[in-house]
Amino acid sequence: MSTASLDHLQARLGHVFNDGGLLVRALTHRSHGADHNERLEFLGDAVLNLAVSDLLFDHFDDSPEGDLTRVRAHLVRQDMLHRIALSLALPQELRLSEGEARGGGAQRPSILADAMEAIIGAVYRDAGYAAAQGLVRRLFEPLVIETATQAWAKDAKTQLQEWLQARRLSVPDYRIEATRGRAHDQTFVVVCSVVEHGIEGRGEGRSRRAAEQEAARLVLDQLSRTHE
Amino acid sequence: MSTASLDHLQARLGHVFNDGGLLVRALTHRSHGADHNERLEFLGDAVLNLAVSDLLFDHFDDSPEGDLTRVRAHLVRQDMLHRIALSLALPQELRLSEGEARGGGAQRPSILADAMEAIIGAVYRDAGYAAAQGLVRRLFEPLVIETATQAWAKDAKTQLQEWLQARRLSVPDYRIEATRGRAHDQTFVVVCSVVEHGIEGRGEGRSRRAAEQEAARLVLDQLSRTHE
Repeated sequence: MSTASLDHLQARLGHVFNDGGLLVRALTHRSHGADHNERLEFLGDAVLNLAVSDLLFDHFDDSPEGDLTRVRAHLVRQDMLHRIALSLALPQELRLSEGEARGGGAQRPSILADAMEAIIGAVYRDAGYAAAQGLVRRLFEPLVIETATQAWAKDAKTQLQEWLQARRLSVPDYRIEATRGRAHDQTFVVVCSVVEHGIEGRGEGRSRRAAEQEAARLVLDQLSRTHE
Repeated sequence: MSTASLDHLQARLGHVFNDGGLLVRALTHRSHGADHNERLEFLGDAVLNLAVSDLLFDHFDDSPEGDLTRVRAHLVRQDMLHRIALSLALPQELRLSEGEARGGGAQRPSILADAMEAIIGAVYRDAGYAAAQGLVRRLFEPLVIETATQAWAKDAKTQLQEWLQARRLSVPDYRIEATRGRAHDQTFVVVCSVVEHGIEGRGEGRSRRAAEQEAARLVLDQLSRTHE
């Protein structure tokens, strides 16, 4: 961490700190010393939660509360924060103890996610809610649609299972019909079948899970059309 | 609910709505109709969480994150929101279906707590974060010290048990030595003893639990003094 690199980080965040000490603290892991980021993380977690809630409230103005809750849970997950921390090149800015740094601490998802929350808390302390909300919107808005699709689609498998269980039918069968593309750029084709009804759905997705959800959704659509 | 009683409620809240429809919606249970308070509750829950976090961050500027998290969990609990809803006379303002109203819905803690969160969300939508934060501070600041004492004291029993377990000693014994006062205004005296050390602590409290915590705290103090 140098002054120049902190300047770059602030440019990436789109926020120049009035109190630069807050940013340094947000980047300081508890292994490094007493003035670490855990209290800012406590605050940042709550700022993030509200700013994301507000974003979803606006974005999905017809969705029931349960749907918003599910998308929010996906957006504020550690893996999402970790991804954003990497996009901001946080690993090189973290302050860790020598031992933690040698052990690869700067790449640990939990340490990066915590620092990301601490930065959001630091912006809130530095310039108030509107500034922190602006940061959260810049970072998270591009992820909302993708995440909502995943979060809601995820429910398709659960919904299908519940639909079948309520009618004492056996669980659906999922099988991979095809995979296309190379290791890091694959598309999966999954077939979901409900034997008793002779119904099948064929889903495609960038992961097996996504393809299964899509397939389950198609089966659900057919079942609900034929059983209304 | 009448215009006059809504005026009184706004006076008690210390916030006059620009959009009165938001307040009406916040008071509307889902049993009453489609324009109910669940989405505002989703938002209000997050506003409350941040405003309380911020309050604690300021109030306890030396406390570690874990302590703040524990107090926050106590402050945003349903029973606390229920208590505040009663202090604002919310039951008479709620809009419920006839069936729900006949069943005593206006007194149900969960319905009142949800409406309380929805009101906080409504103020946030109506006038922004600062207004909602002001409301939360007015409502919750008087409860902070009492709640922190409970939340941190609660840990004394757990801490004592962990201390003893770490040394492979048997669990402490708690017994009620005396109760004073009448049914709704009692004081309990509890003795906590650690047989192997011949140490006792005597705690008093308005509930058995509070007295046990106080007793455990005193035993812990003695043990930590003699074992440093």
